[in-house]
Parts: sequence; structure tokens; C-alpha cells
Amino acid sequence: MSEYTKILLEEDEMPTQWYNIVADLPEPPPPALHPGTHQPATAEDFAPLFPMALVEQEVSTERYIDIPGDVLDVYRLWRPSPLFRARRLEKLLDTPAKIFYKYEGVSPAGSHKPNTAVPQVWYNAQEGIRKLTTETGAGQWGSSLAFACAQFGLECEIWQVAASYLAKPHRRTMMEIWGGKVHPSPSDVTEFGRKLLAENPDHPGSLGIAISEAVSEAIEDETVRYALGSVLNHVLLHQTIIGEEALLQLAKVGETPDVLVGCTGGGSNFGGLAFPFLREKLAGKMSPVIRCVEPSACPTLTKGEYRYDFGDTAGLTPLMKMHTLGHGFIPEPIHAGGLRYHGMAPLVSHVYELGLVEAIAVPQLECFAGAVKFARSEGIVPAPEPTHAIAAAIREALACKESGEEKTILTALCGHGHLDLASYDRYMRGEMQDLELSDDLIKAAMLDVPEIA
Amino acid sequence: MSEYTKILLEEDEMPTQWYNIVADLPEPPPPALHPGTHQPATAEDFAPLFPMALVEQEVSTERYIDIPGDVLDVYRLWRPSPLFRARRLEKLLDTPAKIFYKYEGVSPAGSHKPNTAVPQVWYNAQEGIRKLTTETGAGQWGSSLAFACAQFGLECEIWQVAASYLAKPHRRTMMEIWGGKVHPSPSDVTEFGRKLLAENPDHPGSLGIAISEAVSEAIEDETVRYALGSVLNHVLLHQTIIGEEALLQLAKVGETPDVLVGCTGGGSNFGGLAFPFLREKLAGKMSPVIRCVEPSACPTLTKGEYRYDFGDTAGLTPLMKMHTLGHGFIPEPIHAGGLRYHGMAPLVSHVYELGLVEAIAVPQLECFAGAVKFARSEGIVPAPEPTHAIAAAIREALACKESGEEKTILTALCGHGHLDLASYDRYMRGEMQDLELSDDLIKAAMLDVPEIA
Repeated sequence: MSEYTKILLEEDEMPTQWYNIVADLPEPPPPALHPGTHQPATAEDFAPLFPMALVEQEVSTERYIDIPGDVLDVYRLWRPSPLFRARRLEKLLDTPAKIFYKYEGVSPAGSHKPNTAVPQVWYNAQEGIRKLTTETGAGQWGSSLAFACAQFGLECEIWQVAASYLAKPHRRTMMEIWGGKVHPSPSDVTEFGRKLLAENPDHPGSLGIAISEAVSEAIEDETVRYALGSVLNHVLLHQTIIGEEALLQLAKVGETPDVLVGCTGGGSNFGGLAFPFLREKLAGKMSPVIRCVEPSACPTLTKGEYRYDFGDTAGLTPLMKMHTLGHGFIPEPIHAGGLRYHGMAPLVSHVYELGLVEAIAVPQLECFAGAVKFARSEGIVPAPEPTHAIAAAIREALACKESGEEKTILTALCGHGHLDLASYDRYMRGEMQDLELSDDLIKAAMLDVPEIA
Repeated sequence: MSEYTKILLEEDEMPTQWYNIVADLPEPPPPALHPGTHQPATAEDFAPLFPMALVEQEVSTERYIDIPGDVLDVYRLWRPSPLFRARRLEKLLDTPAKIFYKYEGVSPAGSHKPNTAVPQVWYNAQEGIRKLTTETGAGQWGSSLAFACAQFGLECEIWQVAASYLAKPHRRTMMEIWGGKVHPSPSDVTEFGRKLLAENPDHPGSLGIAISEAVSEAIEDETVRYALGSVLNHVLLHQTIIGEEALLQLAKVGETPDVLVGCTGGGSNFGGLAFPFLREKLAGKMSPVIRCVEPSACPTLTKGEYRYDFGDTAGLTPLMKMHTLGHGFIPEPIHAGGLRYHGMAPLVSHVYELGLVEAIAVPQLECFAGAVKFARSEGIVPAPEPTHAIAAAIREALACKESGEEKTILTALCGHGHLDLASYDRYMRGEMQDLELSDDLIKAAMLDVPEIA
């Protein structure tokens, strides 16, 4: 294996448990609060939205949770996912560093999202749920949920931000191939949607509006629930299979990371890769620097405040303590749609506050420049979101070139960019620009965030 | 491994030789002929187009040819490719048959084409060639060659059929990410292109015209050569790594195929999968039925004639003895663009004439219906071309359901459909129809084929 490019695991080496970082943190994360009373949210508060098994996972303090056999069976369609040594990129950069990337683009939907979509659908199926609703922006999450629903025979109804619905018809087609029913949002299906369409028939929609429509459709019917693709504890829990596999794969070639970088939007890709390594670090078994990478245009950790805020724009969800730019904040239209979220997963926010992880923000031109280098050397065209992780890995590798250090760098390529080629086209024609965020804009968006002691 | 879904090979289990079926055939295939003299074509006739190493492979009778180490290094970016047992599709079909599929969509370009693009570029690089030219229709081949050129630092210039250039901008973007220079064809770069544009500024182009432009640009410059993505012997040779890997993978789980089905356009995917199994069959080690699957709208084997014809529409290439619908035949605009070729690889045609393989034609509605079943059960959205192979595998599996036979079926899923979702959209909206070919149309196209004794 001295000249390996890919480090693979056999199916029977695939981890059979998810890892819950809450069990190992020096301080427990602050609880979610009821949006009306501001008291800690109870299981009943979550019950109209999620099946009980997922509500239990959301507040669990168990260190390991078994992955159901039916879920493992579906995981096997693409898992264990490969870990690559980026030898050809290293050569291009002329760096003494070793760059490893865990590749999640091998999933049917092309990203890490099915890792949580599959168990979410399965737990709902176990509790007799007939249909799941959700929102989607660019479509990665919506297509993952549609795929998972097809596996267990559930209906899937998706509200896609109208602007994306029109601009990215191929992602919608993908959802439909898997049996998903897709509405542009605002839609004429919900009262809220009809109200907005009456005001503006060409309303472009927003993720916040799409969440409101999906949630309202779920809570009206006992046989329907809602599913979320990031941010929540149980979502990050399911994604830890990424990091658990990567640990086993690095061990096969006798490596431990000196630096781990991951892109952060809602936080599920980062948490999924990083938390198993953070466990090892807390146990004194390795000592990687662990770093979040966010877009300069939506710098939740590096410029947001750590306080209670709503998860959605309309303020319907429980309040979560997290780094936020304000729930009314509308991020700039950068191409990494999956990173355009005003908040950060409470668990990622918490470990950042505890000083266990670092964070940097990277502008999008640097990201796309890195992605083109990556594509020409490693072959894979990355989705816009992980271009941030790649840009950060390249920064590290070039620093090693300066210093002569042979650091081992680990990152996750959380999805391919086959359905995001229009972004690359804009970049290569010189039509893309960096979108920096003014402090005034952030201040203004924070005005609506409730004051909670 | 009793419950395996994927059968993987380690990198050091990857075959290190390609297999040349010519060495094992009961009769040698008829030679290519010079287009002017109708005498057997010599190495010198091919020299302006291809490097000598590839010309030698084109006429080689060696059984095995070593894969260069540099080529193996690039192959490792995605090879060995996985062999899947389609358990979830079997369950959906309620069949006692076992369905295996070799998946080539894991390559950077998303199809089997890089298997030959990489060695073609490498051999050109060894002979000091600076630039490669080629044509592309839908874009699978052009993007594969651009990727391969990026690996070895060659320039890549691609003439894409104008209608596709306009209708499929994302494939073009992919070629550009890898550094390819893409022209719509007809283009203002060549004399032939300018002539056609002068006659019709909105000329939609054709594969034949694009070939003429790419060839004319190659033969004008000593440092430039041309590359072809299918049909020729050396292309099929490079693709045999598919079948060699599949043989090793099936052996790992103790299986031999009873039926092998593969889609055929130019013939490289089919030959790549089937020839190593045909070797085993000729040696008496197994006895699979081996079947070509072609589109009803372009039924080269099942309705074409076996005779000498040109490889391109303009009649510039050597004459090859093959099944042909006539080099002037313009296939119906079916969605499987990669199967819209008037001829069939001479080697595939030859083994068909010898009775070593069978052929069937399948209409496109049946193909897309099968593909949607496949996507909903196995997760992967197939490219339009391999939907033909899937449809044929499903026919076989359903016949097993009738008969109760537990046959082992093997096929190749030669590419994913991420850049072909518009075809699925048309199918699901009921806007697609079957395109049957009239015998009169074939007769008319055959009139231009030269009479050769």
C-alpha cells in the first residue's frame, strides 16, 4: 500500500454506530428553548415535527448509538466512502504536506446529505409516518430526502426556493426521478404561500419561506412529519459516520492528521468529519488543529454573535444557542448555496466557544481558483461548498512548502459539482466576484434577534 | 461477504495488462482499407492521425499489452471501479436472478471513456505531441479527453456539434474546467467550417462535420494528433480493463455470468466488458450468452449490413468492415447520444458475424422506464446509453421470474446521467416517444456506401 491513492474499507469494516460528541464534552451544550415561553423545549414541543426516536437522539447523552440494520443496508449502496491521498494535487503544489480527502460525492445524490436522510426516513417509517416534507435551496438536501424516501416507500414533498426551482431545473428532475413531489416556494399549496403569491406572483422565495411551507404542511396531518438536513444534533450525529470511517482509513496507512479543515454551512459536514477526531483529541490520542472554513460572505462563526436565535426566518422553530448573523439575515447570493445559512449548528457553535475548534472565512474567488487546480489534478469537480475546504487545505499545503513541514492535512470533499457547473462557467468567464459582508449589515440583521438572559 | 452489495478490488489487484481479443479469434478480422486505393491500410496511412504506439496497437495480434505505469497511476484516481450486486433492484423485480453491474460512472468524466482517453494522451505525450484534437457530440468523450490532457500537460481542442454546444452548456463547462478549448462545429477555425457557416450561419452541425474539422486541424501540424473515443481496435483494447476487473470481482464471490448484456454505440463499452468473458468462453471456462443491446432507432447490428464503409460522414477515414446503416445515415435524435453512430466497431461486428455474440434492439421508452426503476432502487441515475443495458437486464430478470431460473446476469453501467437530466425530464412529462426506423430510410442511406469486393 506504499503507493496507494485511495484507501478503501470493506463493507464489513463499515462502522455500525454513530458517535455523539455530547457524551465527551467538558460542558453540556445549552438546551433549545420554546419559541414562546423561552423555557427549555420538551420532547412534546418537537413531536409534531419529528418522530420520537429522532427527538430522543436530539437530546441524547449516550456516547454511541447503533445504526439500524436497514440503514446499513442502504448505506452499502455507496459506503464506506473512499479516502483519497491527493498525490497529484500535492505534486502540482510542490508541497511536502500530505493531503487526504474523504469523498462523499459517491452517494446517489452526490453529497453527504443521504447519510442523515436515510436514517431520518427509516425512523419515520418505523413510527408509521406516510409522508415527509422538507425545504430545499440548491437541491442537495431535497434530492437526498427523495432518494431515501424511495428506499423505504414514503412519499416526499419538497418546497424548493422559487429562484432555484427556476434556475436549477436539473436538481428538480433528480428529485422527481426518485419520486419526490416538488413545489416552487412560495407555492399555492399552503396558506402562507398563497398569501405571498397574492402580494407578488413572481416572488423569488427564500429558505425561510420554504421551511414555513414544509413545516405547516407537516403539522396539519398526523401521518406527516418534517425533516431537516443540517444544524440539529441528530443530523450531526448521523454524519459522524464520515469521521469514523476516515479514522479507520487513516489508521490503515499509519497516519494521524496534524490539521483538519472542513467547510461549514449548517455544520453537518464539518461535525460529521471532525467530531470523531475531536473525541480522539480530547482523549489525548492525537492533537490535530481542527478548523471550520466558512464563506467570507456568510461568516457565521467569525463574525456572528453566540446567542439564542431562531432556526428559520419566520421565527417558528425552537430557539437555539448558536453563532448567528440574525435570523432575518439574507446572505449574499454566493454560489455555495449550501453555506448560505444565518446560523451555525448549536453543537459546532458550542465546541467553538469552548475553544476546541478554530474558524476562518475564505472568499469565493480563492475557492474556485483552488477548485479548478483540484479538478485538473485530482479529476473530481467539487461542489461549490467544499471548494472552501479545498482552498483552506491548499493554504495549509502552501504554508508547508514555505516552512518545509511535512504536515498531514485531512479534509472532506462533501459533494461533486456536476449540477453546479453554471457557477464554474461564471468563474471562468471572469463574471464572479468576491462578496464581502459589511459590519453594518450584520448589525442591522441582529436587531430582530430576541434578548434572552 | 455473504451480504455484500459492492465487490471491490484493492489498487494492487487492478489488472496491469489490456486484453487483445484478436489473438484468440478463430478468424482474423478483415483489415482496414485505404479510402482511395481500397488496399489494406498501412501504418503510414494512420501516422498523420495517431502516434505510432497506438497504430501498432491497432494492428497488434499480441494477446496482452502492458498498461504503462503512468497510466495506472491516473487510473487509480477511480479504478478499480466497483462491481455492484443489484439486490434492491432484484427485490423490486421479485426475481430469483442475480443482477451484477460494473459501474464506470465513478470516473472523473462520469463514464468509461477516460479508460482510453488516459492512455491515448500518454502515448501521444511520449511521442512529443503538443496538442490533441477531437470531436464530441453530447460531450462524454470530449470531457474525458480534456481531463486526460490535463493529467499529462497536453493542450486539448474539441469540436462539439453546434446543436449540443448550445443545448448542453454544462458539458462544455466541464471540458473548460479541465483546460479544454471548445468550439461549436461548424466553426470559423477551419476552412471546412467557414464554408458551411457561409452557407448557413445557424448550421446545427453533425458528428461527421466535427470529425472533419478535428482531423483537418490535426493533419496540418506535426505536433498535433487526433483522438477517437470508440470504434477502433486500440480503443476497445484499452476498455478491456472493465471486463478484466469484473472477472476478478465475480471470482471473489464465486460467480460466473449466465448472461452478459452491454449497450453498443461505437462498441467500446460493450467490447471492454465482453471480450475478457468471451476469452473465457472460447477457452471453455464458462458459457455465458453474450448480447449486444442497441437502440431501436439506430439498430446497426440488427438491421445494418456487414460491409466496408467509412467511419465518418465526409468519407475521409479508412474504410472498415463493419455493420453499418450507411455513413450518410443521420440517426433519429434519441436521448442516448452516445449510441447514435451509423457503424459498429469492426471487432464487435466481426465477433457478431462469427456467431460469438447476439444482438437485440430496445426502444427508448422501455429504457427510461427501466432506468427510473433502477434509480429508485439502486440509487444511481444512469446515463441514457446504459439504460439500454439495464432494460435488457430487466427483461432477462423478469424472464427468470417466469421460469424460476436463478440466472446470474452481468452488465455494465457505463456512466451516470447527471448531465442528461433534461432527457429524464422529457420522459417523466410524457414528452418522449419511441422512434422506430423505417427500412426505406436504411435502404436510402446504404446507397452511398462504396461497393468493395
